[in-house]
Amino acid sequence: MTPPPVSPGTPLAHLDTPALILEMAPFERNIERLQSAVRGSGARVRPHAKSHKCVEIARRQLKAGAIGICCQKVSEAEPFVEAGVRDVLITNEVIGEAKVRRLADLAQHARIGVCVDDARNVAELSVAAQHARVVLDVLVEIDVGGNRCGVSPGDEAVQLALAIKNTPHVRFGGLHAYHGRAQHMRTVAERSAAAQTAAAQARSTRDALARYGVACETITGGGTGTCFFDAGSRVYNEIQPGSYIFMDADYLRNEWQPMPEFEPSLFVLCGVMSATVPGRVIVDAGLKALAVDSGMPLVRGHGGLAYAGPSDEHGIVTVPAGTPAPALGDKLQLIPGHCDPTVNLYDRIIAVRDGKVEAVWAVSSRGALW
Amino acid sequence: MTPPPVSPGTPLAHLDTPALILEMAPFERNIERLQSAVRGSGARVRPHAKSHKCVEIARRQLKAGAIGICCQKVSEAEPFVEAGVRDVLITNEVIGEAKVRRLADLAQHARIGVCVDDARNVAELSVAAQHARVVLDVLVEIDVGGNRCGVSPGDEAVQLALAIKNTPHVRFGGLHAYHGRAQHMRTVAERSAAAQTAAAQARSTRDALARYGVACETITGGGTGTCFFDAGSRVYNEIQPGSYIFMDADYLRNEWQPMPEFEPSLFVLCGVMSATVPGRVIVDAGLKALAVDSGMPLVRGHGGLAYAGPSDEHGIVTVPAGTPAPALGDKLQLIPGHCDPTVNLYDRIIAVRDGKVEAVWAVSSRGALW
Repeated sequence: MTPPPVSPGTPLAHLDTPALILEMAPFERNIERLQSAVRGSGARVRPHAKSHKCVEIARRQLKAGAIGICCQKVSEAEPFVEAGVRDVLITNEVIGEAKVRRLADLAQHARIGVCVDDARNVAELSVAAQHARVVLDVLVEIDVGGNRCGVSPGDEAVQLALAIKNTPHVRFGGLHAYHGRAQHMRTVAERSAAAQTAAAQARSTRDALARYGVACETITGGGTGTCFFDAGSRVYNEIQPGSYIFMDADYLRNEWQPMPEFEPSLFVLCGVMSATVPGRVIVDAGLKALAVDSGMPLVRGHGGLAYAGPSDEHGIVTVPAGTPAPALGDKLQLIPGHCDPTVNLYDRIIAVRDGKVEAVWAVSSRGALW
Repeated sequence: MTPPPVSPGTPLAHLDTPALILEMAPFERNIERLQSAVRGSGARVRPHAKSHKCVEIARRQLKAGAIGICCQKVSEAEPFVEAGVRDVLITNEVIGEAKVRRLADLAQHARIGVCVDDARNVAELSVAAQHARVVLDVLVEIDVGGNRCGVSPGDEAVQLALAIKNTPHVRFGGLHAYHGRAQHMRTVAERSAAAQTAAAQARSTRDALARYGVACETITGGGTGTCFFDAGSRVYNEIQPGSYIFMDADYLRNEWQPMPEFEPSLFVLCGVMSATVPGRVIVDAGLKALAVDSGMPLVRGHGGLAYAGPSDEHGIVTVPAGTPAPALGDKLQLIPGHCDPTVNLYDRIIAVRDGKVEAVWAVSSRGALW
């Protein structure tokens, strides 16, 4: 199976569908908007590569001022390190000999950080680091409201940090305090309150560590929904937003004002493949072309049209009475409901500027589950 | 990014996670169960390859008696034709010059059928077939209740069939009458009734065509949920189930008795990556390892455990009070909520027998969107 050939200069309208397209102008504005909004806050930007999995995008983020990247899986990080990214934080626990060995090997080529929430894992990391002759930065993940991974802030975190301090071949790197659930709270007030609670828990843990003489070099967290609050908290000194470069239908449902707002830049170009009855057309992008876990995609630039539901390879788009229906073969652009798992369905991102293909980028870490 | 190495003989418990595993014994029983249940019904079996996208699986279906395969996309079909499958029906409309040309090229190597629901598409197919010096089998898709693609049964279908008859380089192949929505109706009575309605519409269209002297060589349809009714309808002479080889949590919610029942054979092996509080553990398989459009996966062999929700790379598994919690590093097997889009997330299927790897199969058409 070979994908349809695409070359720079091809008009957008000539692309075979479905295709994942990135509009360069809003994408570049999003990168610049984030960097300028946090400039002077004291917080470093370490964008999350789990959203894009694309070396070319990481390069642009680093060029704009990011100090490194985050990855969620060791295998996700590998193409980035291979491409020359020299500072990667795995914002996740890495468990088991195979993965830990791979992680340590990576640290022979880049500064690698990783999160822990269990002392046995610290020991496992130490053995692998010794074997690979590297030192791993190990951050204690604290659960600041996500109810997912992480130890409790305070005593539990202190004990784990002390365990790291007392273990060879690993270095205590600080705290990972990411509040995933807060990112899609709809109002600014809700997200701000959740971010404050998270920051307070990170601060009290930092202060408790200080009483043991242990400094927290890094306190990191903050996704697209809360990163401006986190950057302004004077607790976090690193933020890790991912989706801000693309946006998606779910993030667009958030209230943003008076926070800086990001623009949708990522679209699934699809084609009308059936138009037999009034009131609906069928497009060629379904569950294998779009992630729908966070809701349906939006139809770009067509007020009345709605993507009503997917099947594996089809999408039903409803056309209200009085709205002109797209014709067979017409192309529509969809704003994905959730950008990260949508990107993971594609082998390439087609970068577009002024209606023409500018470049074709590999989704280098697509399918990197390990 | 290279996947972890896997070799035949490796114990299941040693596989790195997440991994998509296929248990050969129930998989083989499912294939045999379908073939024996429809033997003597007069219906041919043309399994749908959109579920597995895997040449090795198609080979086993053909060996067991399938007369060819279905695909949903032209690019999905290509690896199968390349591997020697000589009879493929694209159960879908193929629109636009690029795709139609690709389709006609495929017909230089295999018998290729395709569905239409628009006369302009018939003309487009004819041009491509002429150019490639092939004849395409073209089936009229009728909408028998799916409310998706297809013309109305009866007159509209007859007009389109006559258009095909009157067009060179294409051959009228019959009717595609697939009722997608019926497959997951929960009770046998509901599915049987929906299948009867679909069969009645196909029959009346067939009879209307006969009045024009047009024979319907093939009437095809029937997924895993209705195929036994369709095979017994004396209207359909071809069925196209896909999921029966794997099953999934959604199909397991169907009532099956007294119909033959299929067994789950496809599992996502995942690992416990965090276990910090009572009542839940976190596994390393989230939205990028499991499709959740049709509901959450089931935890295999652990009555009390429930996969409560995914994030991109995590799954929260709840552990009721009194149930022993899996430990950090333990492995769990999940029955995906929906098999087709789950398979599409993986580059390989690991075939397992008696707890050991038997083979590693490429998901040859993963990501084949065109």
